[in-house]
Amino acid sequence: MRPRIHKITIAYDGTPFKGWQRQGKEPTVQLAIEDALAECWGRRITLHGAGRTDTGVHALAQVAHFEAPGKLPPATLVKALNSHLPPAVRITEARWMPPSFHSRFSATGKQYLYRVFNEPTFSPFEVHRAWHIPRRLNLAAIHQSTRCLIGQHDFASFTSNPGYKRITTVRIIRSISIRREGPVVLIRFRGSGFLYRMVRNLMGAFAKVGTGRFHPDEIRRILEARQRQAAPNTAPACGLYLSRVFYGKGGAQDPAGFSPEDEG
Amino acid sequence: MRPRIHKITIAYDGTPFKGWQRQGKEPTVQLAIEDALAECWGRRITLHGAGRTDTGVHALAQVAHFEAPGKLPPATLVKALNSHLPPAVRITEARWMPPSFHSRFSATGKQYLYRVFNEPTFSPFEVHRAWHIPRRLNLAAIHQSTRCLIGQHDFASFTSNPGYKRITTVRIIRSISIRREGPVVLIRFRGSGFLYRMVRNLMGAFAKVGTGRFHPDEIRRILEARQRQAAPNTAPACGLYLSRVFYGKGGAQDPAGFSPEDEG
Repeated sequence: MRPRIHKITIAYDGTPFKGWQRQGKEPTVQLAIEDALAECWGRRITLHGAGRTDTGVHALAQVAHFEAPGKLPPATLVKALNSHLPPAVRITEARWMPPSFHSRFSATGKQYLYRVFNEPTFSPFEVHRAWHIPRRLNLAAIHQSTRCLIGQHDFASFTSNPGYKRITTVRIIRSISIRREGPVVLIRFRGSGFLYRMVRNLMGAFAKVGTGRFHPDEIRRILEARQRQAAPNTAPACGLYLSRVFYGKGGAQDPAGFSPEDEG
Repeated sequence: MRPRIHKITIAYDGTPFKGWQRQGKEPTVQLAIEDALAECWGRRITLHGAGRTDTGVHALAQVAHFEAPGKLPPATLVKALNSHLPPAVRITEARWMPPSFHSRFSATGKQYLYRVFNEPTFSPFEVHRAWHIPRRLNLAAIHQSTRCLIGQHDFASFTSNPGYKRITTVRIIRSISIRREGPVVLIRFRGSGFLYRMVRNLMGAFAKVGTGRFHPDEIRRILEARQRQAAPNTAPACGLYLSRVFYGKGGAQDPAGFSPEDEG
């Protein structure tokens, strides 16, 4: 049977994992899926993820690919893999792709969602699923502060990567949308790609703006400083969800349905 | 300081608990809250719940009361108790009540919510929070089957209490509402009170109706048989939420906002 490129879409609760990337025998999402692949093919197969997620970070639609003989139709593969995976990891879709496809290098953009539980008393059902900020956030102020971030910028102030001086820290943010859904505030980031901890560092700054401790213009000052020390603390991992990976020309365009009217 | 009746409202994730009711040193919600009360008053105080919940059953708004000197204003008490409780249990409200108040005997009705995750692939974020039924449920059929249950009936067929022959098994169901919210089907039960495992046994039967294995009329046949053997299996605990306890004359009336148009 000739080898095929299999693309899989994965949802996971990051709580029990030390992130996406395999690190020996540590419990990681990549290792869990590679173990399930080994059950299906009878040998080790390397999985390539579209992006790494940190310890405790979740995914609604992470994408990965691997090369293996196409012995199972995609729908059967989804069921077979899920039967070997813990409930915290679910394969939601599988597809055969052309040989040129690479989950990471073919990606044209990514979307992250950050969830804040914004009521005085935390919900027992949101533990490990959202960041609890008891004080009511001023979403209009956060929205105002996001404006300077849209477009291509050097986001050095918002990465925690100690090696950031050796790589480019320029990225494109296409949109940041904010809305309240009952007790939850949802902030959605779309862009060409994101630096290590960039979304969580932006969220840390937005929390200061939303609670009135920073003027919205402060975000521009931090951005222009181009050094991590200028920015406040990193927001917790548990609120962050990798929610989409874009492929093709339309990558990370803002579609209708989450319009500016939803924001602020 | 004179003793006062304190009413508290509690939300809990039932997953880590062996139910509500204290059983020695077993991890139960009652014991967790009584431990927190002991931290606040410096002595053991007995908590009286409006109803017991089984292992793994959740609560959005369980109610309980206790008698203790009113040394803390209710808002302060909420914060104090929460600071001594695990994140799986949150006190959402506290109030001082007249001496005649009793969380259980003053209750005029109860509301339970049952959550079904109704998509082929389970969500990692719904594990322990919903019952996974992969096959799409026919909500119109379930709705039809609920009609014979509304009003006062002998629900002996739907209780798992081995001692049910010695107690009355007559209860009043005021409404059963069904609606789909994205991938989740929500079934809300309101009534005078519910027998041991009654909601889960009803749900077990509704699942048979919704997946086409039972004709909707089968529910009437089971009800009229008045014996537990007539009914199918008990639905899992993880989908069940005690969502409201009613006090006063209006107990468990169906308000506007969850109208018959939402159903089916």
